[in-house]
Amino acid sequence: MALHPDRLLPVDPGTRGIARRLYGAVSGLPILSPHGHTEPAWYAEDRAFPDPAQLFVVPDHYVFRMLYSQGVPLEALGVPRRDGGPTETDGRAIWRLFARHYPLFRGTPTRLWFEHALETVFGIDERLTPGNADRLYDAIADAIGRPELRPRALYERFGIEAIATTDAALDDLHHHAALRDCGWSGRVLPTYRPDAVVDPDRATFREDVARLCALAGEPVTWSGSLAAHRARRAFFRSLGATATDHGHPTARTADLGAAEASALFDRVMAGPVSAEDAELFRAQMLTEMAGMSVEDGLTMQLHPGSVRNHNPQVFARFGLDKGADIPQPTGYVHALKPLLDRFGNDPRLTLVLFTLDEAQYGRELAPLAGHYPALRLGPPWWFFDSPDGMRRFREIATETAGFANTVGFNDDTRAYLSIPARHDMARRIDCGHLARLVAEHRLDEDEAHDLAHDLAYGLAKAAYRL
Amino acid sequence: MALHPDRLLPVDPGTRGIARRLYGAVSGLPILSPHGHTEPAWYAEDRAFPDPAQLFVVPDHYVFRMLYSQGVPLEALGVPRRDGGPTETDGRAIWRLFARHYPLFRGTPTRLWFEHALETVFGIDERLTPGNADRLYDAIADAIGRPELRPRALYERFGIEAIATTDAALDDLHHHAALRDCGWSGRVLPTYRPDAVVDPDRATFREDVARLCALAGEPVTWSGSLAAHRARRAFFRSLGATATDHGHPTARTADLGAAEASALFDRVMAGPVSAEDAELFRAQMLTEMAGMSVEDGLTMQLHPGSVRNHNPQVFARFGLDKGADIPQPTGYVHALKPLLDRFGNDPRLTLVLFTLDEAQYGRELAPLAGHYPALRLGPPWWFFDSPDGMRRFREIATETAGFANTVGFNDDTRAYLSIPARHDMARRIDCGHLARLVAEHRLDEDEAHDLAHDLAYGLAKAAYRL
Amino acid sequence: MALHPDRLLPVDPGTRGIARRLYGAVSGLPILSPHGHTEPAWYAEDRAFPDPAQLFVVPDHYVFRMLYSQGVPLEALGVPRRDGGPTETDGRAIWRLFARHYPLFRGTPTRLWFEHALETVFGIDERLTPGNADRLYDAIADAIGRPELRPRALYERFGIEAIATTDAALDDLHHHAALRDCGWSGRVLPTYRPDAVVDPDRATFREDVARLCALAGEPVTWSGSLAAHRARRAFFRSLGATATDHGHPTARTADLGAAEASALFDRVMAGPVSAEDAELFRAQMLTEMAGMSVEDGLTMQLHPGSVRNHNPQVFARFGLDKGADIPQPTGYVHALKPLLDRFGNDPRLTLVLFTLDEAQYGRELAPLAGHYPALRLGPPWWFFDSPDGMRRFREIATETAGFANTVGFNDDTRAYLSIPARHDMARRIDCGHLARLVAEHRLDEDEAHDLAHDLAYGLAKAAYRL
Repeated sequence: MALHPDRLLPVDPGTRGIARRLYGAVSGLPILSPHGHTEPAWYAEDRAFPDPAQLFVVPDHYVFRMLYSQGVPLEALGVPRRDGGPTETDGRAIWRLFARHYPLFRGTPTRLWFEHALETVFGIDERLTPGNADRLYDAIADAIGRPELRPRALYERFGIEAIATTDAALDDLHHHAALRDCGWSGRVLPTYRPDAVVDPDRATFREDVARLCALAGEPVTWSGSLAAHRARRAFFRSLGATATDHGHPTARTADLGAAEASALFDRVMAGPVSAEDAELFRAQMLTEMAGMSVEDGLTMQLHPGSVRNHNPQVFARFGLDKGADIPQPTGYVHALKPLLDRFGNDPRLTLVLFTLDEAQYGRELAPLAGHYPALRLGPPWWFFDSPDGMRRFREIATETAGFANTVGFNDDTRAYLSIPARHDMARRIDCGHLARLVAEHRLDEDEAHDLAHDLAYGLAKAAYRL
Repeated sequence: MALHPDRLLPVDPGTRGIARRLYGAVSGLPILSPHGHTEPAWYAEDRAFPDPAQLFVVPDHYVFRMLYSQGVPLEALGVPRRDGGPTETDGRAIWRLFARHYPLFRGTPTRLWFEHALETVFGIDERLTPGNADRLYDAIADAIGRPELRPRALYERFGIEAIATTDAALDDLHHHAALRDCGWSGRVLPTYRPDAVVDPDRATFREDVARLCALAGEPVTWSGSLAAHRARRAFFRSLGATATDHGHPTARTADLGAAEASALFDRVMAGPVSAEDAELFRAQMLTEMAGMSVEDGLTMQLHPGSVRNHNPQVFARFGLDKGADIPQPTGYVHALKPLLDRFGNDPRLTLVLFTLDEAQYGRELAPLAGHYPALRLGPPWWFFDSPDGMRRFREIATETAGFANTVGFNDDTRAYLSIPARHDMARRIDCGHLARLVAEHRLDEDEAHDLAHDLAYGLAKAAYRL
Repeated sequence: MALHPDRLLPVDPGTRGIARRLYGAVSGLPILSPHGHTEPAWYAEDRAFPDPAQLFVVPDHYVFRMLYSQGVPLEALGVPRRDGGPTETDGRAIWRLFARHYPLFRGTPTRLWFEHALETVFGIDERLTPGNADRLYDAIADAIGRPELRPRALYERFGIEAIATTDAALDDLHHHAALRDCGWSGRVLPTYRPDAVVDPDRATFREDVARLCALAGEPVTWSGSLAAHRARRAFFRSLGATATDHGHPTARTADLGAAEASALFDRVMAGPVSAEDAELFRAQMLTEMAGMSVEDGLTMQLHPGSVRNHNPQVFARFGLDKGADIPQPTGYVHALKPLLDRFGNDPRLTLVLFTLDEAQYGRELAPLAGHYPALRLGPPWWFFDSPDGMRRFREIATETAGFANTVGFNDDTRAYLSIPARHDMARRIDCGHLARLVAEHRLDEDEAHDLAHDLAYGLAKAAYRL
């Protein structure tokens, strides 16, 4: 059951041989994690992780959505209720439930991430079953108390060179400040994520914009709010930020004149806000953010296309990020035009595009990124952060956009232990893709070695200015 | 020319070896056919099939659409005209025409189904050509007169454990009743297909709704019609039905209040019906049907996205189902929301989703099925019931939805002799997919054996409660 | 670094062996190039090509869009400015810049086309690097002065049997006339491309329509313009044309009554033109063109779905066709219906459909082409004219449309030297696809040989009546 050295490499023996050589040369490179969702507190406080269920099940929406889809209540998996209602708190009970349903993950990346962590972090190379669930639980519970499994020790053991967190525009970044001052050599960088203050559909939008302006000592006006964004971005940069991130329902952008934009700001702050005004404000803010990136050099990331909280019952009971976000068709060619008309030719801007709509890899995204100096393609996102998902991305995007218009890998995860597994998966799949090109005589092996290094390390370093 | 034992298995020798072992263990499992279009009369009356052309060409839209696309008139293929106009009636002439154009089917599943039936049912392992057309015609014509080629004998020979037919809501199911009473051990189950009484765009909609209500002794009102549906569903269940099926132009659902729904019913019954009212009524009826499935346990199937009768000349001359139905883009994420808001979290509902829009496998369908307890993904449908179509489905859907949120195979066919060929194709492709996962060390072989059994048998049995 | 004899063939050794045999039998077939963009002047005047940069870099949007996407100004690549502003004119400087950025093309078809031309035309089997750039430049510059590298000599050396150019409806075709009269045996055929006189959004639309009518001695009326089209088409046919070509933003068609169409013509000629009228006029003209093709037998090609000149700065400075055309989602099922309702069943029409929207291969295009006698599928277009692009097309389209509803290969290129490379790529990929079908026992090898010949030669000859 142990991890096989050839896992995820191409099955054809000749191609696998090439892939092995390529992978062997990049498997040990440091990890750059320029887009993720780990907690800065972990690194700042360096406390032991709680029990195995809290480590592997309770916070991982990939895990609990699959069990939920097969009829397991989220309460039984320990997911906290918003109303404080009863939910399972016994880690062992949650773990046993996970073990009983573990076969559901056959063929999914979750299973590969989990087993990689089990073996490389805990030395466990058995498949989880109801029969060994208790024994494995005890082994993990025992191990996570040890110093070498604390967050900073793992950071070093995982070979991380830099890792970005995701932080609200209003965040005071005190953990990042503490990390800057504490003398530890790890690089934990904040990322400016202003969704709450650019999306009028959020319940706390108006208060949050007011707080944003107050933090910067600016009036609550259109120009005041822009100045406040600039001030917050500078603050984030002072603590190491190299990027912003924007999660929008669509990729729509706008480029209104100042008077129009100001009037729109006044309308969305006065409320109630029409759907069109909310969308237009988000659209305008993307272009403003691009303009600020031209000024301050923060790499801009756009993650559009998720219908958040699709399931009102799950949202009412458990809140955000509970596996009920579902992709929708997402256009780029018309949506991005206002922003691109303004900044698309400016090489000072790096705008990294993500998608949940694979039909866009070849139709709009690769053609756009293969033309505009400001655009790059992010790696396969979320549901497509998977072996076959990564393969499709490379097969479809590369012939039009090349490799240089992509940005390496993002692990995009809250699951700290899965980070090495995820980067390893990406390196294996990318080496497999390159090996196929070599085996088909479309690329020479020395070139493939260069590219494997770029995809594992160099492209992320350059795109995120790490 | 004979069927090769390794056909449709992966080409890589190592992977093929694994696939052979997996396939060997499931190739002989009984056939569950929970969604199909064979005629209940065949089993009830157990008469010999007519001539070879009537068996293989005239009723098979996969066959005649291909010949039509290359300029062969449908009349020459024996397709009956609605006006009773002249059409070829000489089976041998039709068969010769088919033989002359047989190379058109290279690379299509039709060819594989046809040759499987030729060899396994008739012992013919030659490729059909103009040169042997007459001889093969005679051999088949001779064989189909024999008792061992009667429908019931074939049912047993094919190893069918249960087969569902598709039956209009108004159908009296007298063949199913006869089958229940006749002592034969075959299981031929009706399926409740109420399209004609839920779609105001059908020419006979109003009369059909009136008949539906009359059959159940209910008034022709909104609530009367719902009661009538309940009564008809109970009748279908009494004759073995375990499922309903719904063929709609889109996946749109609605969840109107009772007063609104009642007013809508009155409008569509009064006519003329606006396009929006027709769509809204269909949408509302899907949610009503889901609610009834929660009550009575019938598995619900939704087949959306086909533009029926795209070719008005073909429709005017030959009617429905003549190969002129063309898929259109089909959304699910917003369309299904009203139904899912109401019943999506209810594990008593099993709603099996199909699509003709492959862009939806990864974008909306797998994410939805990987979250909602009520949802399952049907197998690749219609144009995608093919080797490469099945591969794409597994490659794209599995990483997000897993295997357990799919329902095994549906043959979906009127072509009785093709049923074993179609199930065999699905088993081979699924085993090939599993073998690749094993060869890539993403799955262990014992797990792949479990899954091969699930995909060939277990999932259909569970999802359709057979 | 030399071209490998097995390049682009499948990696599995057994499958590769089959592919080699298939490819070996078709690699030497004559080239039919029924859709391309080479200049008729080249063949008529038979002058030497200018310097290496003008041959390989300056006119090739695949090349300069990639360099531009990575921050290289188009001026530095010698792309002429509309305002006559400064642009690089030193071919050697451009070539050096190309050499420095050559690694960008790893994994792209451009690299394969370029190296094929380098080796087969110039005998160069080194990879271009900054170190050898000058030497290679000199070698190419030296060679292109020689008689055996003149356009006609290359036509013969490339084994071209017929090549089509693309010509505006107003073109006087004097080069084609000169070619007809000069005694050279090459077949260089014009193609009727009326975009400028059917698209009211073009700046010169009204003058161009007036000129069209004047050329034919017809009044500038709806019926006069149709008569003028008929006259121009007859003129094109007199010089060898066998096809028309239509580049539209969408695939929308219309079938207005004569009075309505005439009123629409009057409105678009009077101006200003609404977006809807412009689209409707283009839509109506497609149906008119189809009707004329029924009459005169010209094969009709439709290339929809490109958003032209997406980048206003690039357009303002450099004009059309500068790598800034981006695909958009493109529907066919509803868009084509008016045209198909009128002519879709008429086997005298051959309408070849192209797409930049791969989601359409399986969803709409293959189902349409597998039914309508008038429809055929063009080869993968533009961004998808690539090894993996071609593979996806065959894998997705074939199972529904078969091979006979496709039309072989189009090179679609302005880059004369790349023509043999492009046809060779298509032959290799098609043979690889066929080899896989043979290796999976879905096709017998003798059938694959027939099909390889069809795909390389026979289908184009038939579809374009060459």
